[in-house]
Amino acid sequence: MGGVLWQLRCLSIVFYRCKLRENGARKMAGGDEGFSVVLEVWVVLRREEVRGRESGGGVVYTRVGTTKMKKRRLGLWLKSMRSMGESEVVLLGWPLSMFGARVKIALAEKGVKYEYKEEVFLHNKSPLLLKCNPIHKKIPVLIHKGRSVCESKIIVEYIDESWKGESPLLPSDPYLRSQARFWADYIDKVIYTVAMKFNSGPKGEEMEKARHECLGYLNVLEGELGDKPYFLGNAFGYVDIALMSYYNHFFTYESLGGFSLKIDSPKLFAWATRCMKRESVSKSLPDPQKIYDYTIVYRKNIGVED
Amino acid sequence: MGGVLWQLRCLSIVFYRCKLRENGARKMAGGDEGFSVVLEVWVVLRREEVRGRESGGGVVYTRVGTTKMKKRRLGLWLKSMRSMGESEVVLLGWPLSMFGARVKIALAEKGVKYEYKEEVFLHNKSPLLLKCNPIHKKIPVLIHKGRSVCESKIIVEYIDESWKGESPLLPSDPYLRSQARFWADYIDKVIYTVAMKFNSGPKGEEMEKARHECLGYLNVLEGELGDKPYFLGNAFGYVDIALMSYYNHFFTYESLGGFSLKIDSPKLFAWATRCMKRESVSKSLPDPQKIYDYTIVYRKNIGVED
Repeated sequence: MGGVLWQLRCLSIVFYRCKLRENGARKMAGGDEGFSVVLEVWVVLRREEVRGRESGGGVVYTRVGTTKMKKRRLGLWLKSMRSMGESEVVLLGWPLSMFGARVKIALAEKGVKYEYKEEVFLHNKSPLLLKCNPIHKKIPVLIHKGRSVCESKIIVEYIDESWKGESPLLPSDPYLRSQARFWADYIDKVIYTVAMKFNSGPKGEEMEKARHECLGYLNVLEGELGDKPYFLGNAFGYVDIALMSYYNHFFTYESLGGFSLKIDSPKLFAWATRCMKRESVSKSLPDPQKIYDYTIVYRKNIGVED
Repeated sequence: MGGVLWQLRCLSIVFYRCKLRENGARKMAGGDEGFSVVLEVWVVLRREEVRGRESGGGVVYTRVGTTKMKKRRLGLWLKSMRSMGESEVVLLGWPLSMFGARVKIALAEKGVKYEYKEEVFLHNKSPLLLKCNPIHKKIPVLIHKGRSVCESKIIVEYIDESWKGESPLLPSDPYLRSQARFWADYIDKVIYTVAMKFNSGPKGEEMEKARHECLGYLNVLEGELGDKPYFLGNAFGYVDIALMSYYNHFFTYESLGGFSLKIDSPKLFAWATRCMKRESVSKSLPDPQKIYDYTIVYRKNIGVED
C-alpha cells in the first residue's frame, strides 16, 4: 500500500497489563507494560469506486483492515506509513508521448524530484496505470502524496498550483490565465488532430490536406506568438509547454507532410530553438528519430505505408 | 467603441490662447483660455492580430485615431469612456446552447449583472461574434472590460477567478481543483460526443449504440457523485455547472434514445432535481421542448428523420 493516502481510526485502546491480569493470562511476549492499540486502516479509493463507501471532505476512504500494535511500535509504524504516503511524486509515462513530456517539463521547471515509471506497452497497460487512471486508462498520470492526477494540461495546472513558489507557469491575472488556457486548448484541439492525420493518413491527397491544415494552424499560432519571446510574454510558461511537447514530433510531421517548420514558420522555429535551450525542455522531449521510426512501423502496421 | 479596453496617449498639448495670439487668430468659439489636447486613442486588439502591432504587458493595442479636445471637456470624456470600457459584462450566446447556459449559471451564481446578446442564426454569425472569437467563431463569448474570453469551461474558470468573493465554483485545494477539472473535461469528452450521436445518428442500431454508450457514461458519473449532494461535496460548483448545462437536452436524448434518467440513473436524477431548485440553474437552461423541436427539424434536414 505504498503511495496511498491513509487514515487511521482508533478502534480500541487496551491496557493489556491490567486486562491480562484480569484474565489471569501470561504477560505478552516482548511486551512492556502499557497499552496496545487496534487501528482501522482506511485508504483512499479511486473516486469512481465511491458508491457505497465512506466519503469525507471530498476524499473517499475504504477500510482495508485492522492492525494491532503496541505503544512502542506505533510511532515507527506511523512514521514509515507517512513517508510512503505523503512524500512521493511518481510520474507514469510512455517514452514517446507528447503529453508525458509536458508533465516532465513542468516538474523540471519547478525543480520537483520524482520517480518515473514507464509504461512499456501501449496496448497492454500496467495494473498500476489501470488503478491510477481507470477512467481513461492513459498516461500521463502524476501520483502525488498517493493521489492520482490525470490529463496532461490538468496535471500541469496542478503542478503550478501545488509548487507555487518556483517559476509560475500560468500568469496570476485572471484574463491572462484565460488566454493561456485558451491557447493550450487550441493547441490540443488542432495540432493533436492534425498529428493523428500525419500518423495514420494515407499518402497523397490526404497527406497534402494535412500539410495545408497544419500550416494554417501554425500560422495562427505564429500570429499569436508575434514578437514575444514566449507565448505569455517574457516568461516561459503554460502555452510554451503545451506546444513544445509536440516539437520533436514535428520531424515526423515535416517528413511525412513535406514542409519545414524552419522555412514555413520561421518565428515559431526561432521560439522553439529558444525553448530548447532550457534544460527542462531539451531533457524532457523524446528522440525525434525514435518517434519517426515508431510512426513508420505504426503506419506499416495499419497499411498506409509500404 | 463601447466595451473596448482603451488607452490614451498624449500627442501634444497646445496652449491655444498663446498659440492663437501668436497666429493672430480669433479666440476659438466656446473656448476658455487654457489648452487643448491631442490624444491618440488605442484599443485592444484581439490577440491573433498581434503581428506588426504594438504589444505591452501581454495586451495588444492598435491606434484607431486621434481626438482633439479642450481642458474642460476632457474630464467628462475620459469618465464616459471609462464607464463604457471597464464596467460592462456582455455575454454572446445562442438560446439553446448548453455551453452558453454554463456561463449564465456561473454569472448568476456570482450575482454578476450582464448584457445578453443573442446570436440569431447558427450559420450566419454576427460581426460582433466574429470579431470577439475569430479563432473558433463560436458562442459563448464573455466580454468583460472590453476583453473577450472564449470557450465555456475557460469562461467559468475566468468568472470564478474574477469574482472571487461570491460562491466559489472551484475548490481552493489544488488536488480537488484538479479533480473538478478532470470531471468537467470528462463530461465534455463523453456527453458531448454521445449528444452529437443522438442529434445526428440514424435510428435503429446507431441509436441503440448511443443509448448504451450514454448509460455507461451516466453510470460512471453516478459513481463519482456517490452520496454527495453535489459533485464537489456539499457546495454546488464547477462540475455541477458542466453537467447541468446538458440537463434540459436530456429530454431529447431520452426521447430519441429510449431511456429514462429518472429510472436508469436515479441518483443523477435526484442530483439534477436538487440543482434545478437553484434559480441560477433553472433560469439559465433552455426550454426542453424547444431543444427537442429544434433537434427534430435538424434531424429532418440532414435526412435521418422522416
